[in-house]
Amino acid sequence: MIQYDHHIKIYYKDIDQMGIVYYSRYFEFFEIARTDMLSSIGLDYVKVEENGAMLPVIEAHAEYKKGAKFSQDIIVKTSIQDVPKVKLKIDYTICNKESDEILVQGYTIHASTTLKGKPIRMPKYIRTIFQENMEKA
Amino acid sequence: MIQYDHHIKIYYKDIDQMGIVYYSRYFEFFEIARTDMLSSIGLDYVKVEENGAMLPVIEAHAEYKKGAKFSQDIIVKTSIQDVPKVKLKIDYTICNKESDEILVQGYTIHASTTLKGKPIRMPKYIRTIFQENMEKA
Amino acid sequence: MIQYDHHIKIYYKDIDQMGIVYYSRYFEFFEIARTDMLSSIGLDYVKVEENGAMLPVIEAHAEYKKGAKFSQDIIVKTSIQDVPKVKLKIDYTICNKESDEILVQGYTIHASTTLKGKPIRMPKYIRTIFQENMEKA
Amino acid sequence: MIQYDHHIKIYYKDIDQMGIVYYSRYFEFFEIARTDMLSSIGLDYVKVEENGAMLPVIEAHAEYKKGAKFSQDIIVKTSIQDVPKVKLKIDYTICNKESDEILVQGYTIHASTTLKGKPIRMPKYIRTIFQENMEKA
Repeated sequence: MIQYDHHIKIYYKDIDQMGIVYYSRYFEFFEIARTDMLSSIGLDYVKVEENGAMLPVIEAHAEYKKGAKFSQDIIVKTSIQDVPKVKLKIDYTICNKESDEILVQGYTIHASTTLKGKPIRMPKYIRTIFQENMEKA
Repeated sequence: MIQYDHHIKIYYKDIDQMGIVYYSRYFEFFEIARTDMLSSIGLDYVKVEENGAMLPVIEAHAEYKKGAKFSQDIIVKTSIQDVPKVKLKIDYTICNKESDEILVQGYTIHASTTLKGKPIRMPKYIRTIFQENMEKA
Repeated sequence: MIQYDHHIKIYYKDIDQMGIVYYSRYFEFFEIARTDMLSSIGLDYVKVEENGAMLPVIEAHAEYKKGAKFSQDIIVKTSIQDVPKVKLKIDYTICNKESDEILVQGYTIHASTTLKGKPIRMPKYIRTIFQENMEKA
Repeated sequence: MIQYDHHIKIYYKDIDQMGIVYYSRYFEFFEIARTDMLSSIGLDYVKVEENGAMLPVIEAHAEYKKGAKFSQDIIVKTSIQDVPKVKLKIDYTICNKESDEILVQGYTIHASTTLKGKPIRMPKYIRTIFQENMEKA
């Protein structure tokens, strides 16, 4: 399993009238966390694109337990369970940093495509990077 | 079943580097569509809050078939299948207005809470409005 | 002078903890309004790009008089005073639709560039469209 | 003068079709930077609100020199020149972290209001904090 923790602070821009983070914002937090998780295992997304591939989201899901509030520090815990053959599934658990309470859980599923959006097999070098980091963990 | 179509135009603000709508934006489109759907059956969300209740999203899901592009007109088709006892489920299908091609499908599930976020039964007048509009359809 | 009114409704996605529209959102409203204003005079921005030019924002300004609230209808009044030689200036006044009260005033200034961002003179056909619509008004 | 540097990384969520940060996003970066700048001098915005005051933006301005790109690290340099009597002006310079090239410059002006939005004099303890930090610098 590959795991990565990303710390995010909540600002006014994220908060809605209920005084908690607006529900779609967590998907931006998911993106921030997965980009840095991929980068941490040597998979710089800029290079993925330079090598002619994209990993667009084909499915996104979130379950909201408790709302994050202005000025709170949260941790987005990202994990990958399996080496992707065709589709890459990334899981996310967002916690209140102070209390460790779970705020949001979710996942995204990514396809592998050409830069024009044509589906392709997950490139070999990407699978190798995942494989190596699975074994390491 | 309650059904409602909401038309949205795609602008630069919605589009990412791939030239398609960024994945979290569709959840904003879902909110726009459901707010107007609820309003269309006589459930003004401002009044829901004035009456002391909120309908926060507790689950959100989207499946991305094809990306919407800048300047495209899309239709967000919203529907409710069942009168909510505790949780309200709203389904969304986003189509390209011109081709009728499905771009995104998803749903949101809403709890019923007090203004302080305490879970409550779905208020009676809200259930009645849903009931009446189910029968009409 | 070229003038155009665009109607926008405020949703939860736009509102912050103060219960009013978050300050950067108005710049999205400016974009929506100017895109449709340009389109209304025959200047489809998709075609501007297809013809090899872009009109990136090089300056943006807003003054906030009063905050728009959830569920309010606002009007974004867009106007262009002069035919652009090099830079295009667009003015915006956002009003509460019901009361006509001014909420926000601002402007954006746009350069003319190639698709790679190199500054160019405002293309002749664009200037002609502005010229013709100035005279009409 | 009070000065503060805040580091931000650019993600897909920030980027538009031109491959650069969408123009309104910089105002979110301004907010992130000023919140942390205020916090750095002992002015926690949560406490400002708990003490019954708000500092809403009444004017916002940005000049765009060059677009930030996906995966770039930028620095938002925030500064305050004067102790606010009535209005607080905050200046921002956004640089490419690697090249130090200036990407965006701007400012925001803030009023001081009650939690209901009624204008008030800048609270004494806030002015004192600014005064002390001006002298320190």
